[in-house]
Amino acid sequence: MPLINIKITKDGVSPEKKEELIQGATQLMVDVLGKNPASTFVIIDEVETDNWGIGGESVTQRRKQGS
Amino acid sequence: MPLINIKITKDGVSPEKKEELIQGATQLMVDVLGKNPASTFVIIDEVETDNWGIGGESVTQRRKQGS
Amino acid sequence: MPLINIKITKDGVSPEKKEELIQGATQLMVDVLGKNPASTFVIIDEVETDNWGIGGESVTQRRKQGS
Amino acid sequence: MPLINIKITKDGVSPEKKEELIQGATQLMVDVLGKNPASTFVIIDEVETDNWGIGGESVTQRRKQGS
Amino acid sequence: MPLINIKITKDGVSPEKKEELIQGATQLMVDVLGKNPASTFVIIDEVETDNWGIGGESVTQRRKQGS
Amino acid sequence: MPLINIKITKDGVSPEKKEELIQGATQLMVDVLGKNPASTFVIIDEVETDNWGIGGESVTQRRKQGS
Repeated sequence: MPLINIKITKDGVSPEKKEELIQGATQLMVDVLGKNPASTFVIIDEVETDNWGIGGESVTQRRKQGS
Repeated sequence: MPLINIKITKDGVSPEKKEELIQGATQLMVDVLGKNPASTFVIIDEVETDNWGIGGESVTQRRKQGS
Repeated sequence: MPLINIKITKDGVSPEKKEELIQGATQLMVDVLGKNPASTFVIIDEVETDNWGIGGESVTQRRKQGS
Repeated sequence: MPLINIKITKDGVSPEKKEELIQGATQLMVDVLGKNPASTFVIIDEVETDNWGIGGESVTQRRKQGS
Repeated sequence: MPLINIKITKDGVSPEKKEELIQGATQLMVDVLGKNPASTFVIIDEVETDNWGIGGESVTQRRKQGS
Repeated sequence: MPLINIKITKDGVSPEKKEELIQGATQLMVDVLGKNPASTFVIIDEVETDNWGIGGESVTQRRKQGS
């Protein structure tokens, strides 16, 4: 029954990469906790870089500054 | 003061259906817990089928396979 | 596949009331959206009244003041 | 290491306002808890007014009625 | 900058297993998306079985019935 | 109507500090976005250090190592 939520910046991640994230996160629940993959949910949220802040500024700003 | 978050796949749910979800979830808090509807929040998140995984694969893939 | 998260203040809600919340929220997904109950998750979070704020003060404070 | 998630209705908040939210929320963690801003995350979610309910109806409906 | 939230039922998962979850989820972000592990957060939530519902009943009930 | 969720490690934050977090986060919504404080919710989640990972290890481990 695990539920995994992955939040990443919205950077055009391909559907194939998303499948890999879903597979990998599900397998982790099987390998570490012996969970049933059939009832494991993975939800990926893609967040605009304007909407994600670190160190007091948005990722948009940080990337402009090369940090 | 309850807060209900409903996550569903993004499948073109109409505004009318969303009103029904909001009404129903709010009423549930009133009926079961005696909460004040005026301070009950409901937030609906619609998730792309590429971004929702079950059983190690995305809903997009599952639907292609008819599962 | 819906996922419903219900956040309420921690006020000693009984297991029976929690069953009612789980049943009601699941049934809402069936009735409004035609979802499969077997793959509907409900997660209830109980939040300490010190940790929930409204109007700039905690629920603990509000209750002391009878508001 | 704090993580702040801010959910607001989607009303065309400007990137500048978002920077202010990120700065302010991060500074709050520094001022109140002495946290390191470099490892403080802020994520802003903008929610469609159809998808946010209060008092049993959506914000879209409430605004139509001037409430 | 990814953020991974893992929700599992509260079943006495050991600190060692939690380390494995944290390592595995972080490594997944590195392997699939080339993310920097230093700024990858993992948060594990353990949910009481009374508070997690599937198929319209709590995990507590389901386990009693052997389902 | 904003909703602010603050996640911090569980380190015995006092009720007074929590009031300051609630006040400050609410005021930020008023100052930056002109929101109504009466309908602003703040929820604080305190996360065990075993359950919060950064850089592939738990905060518990990082603190042992003085990192």
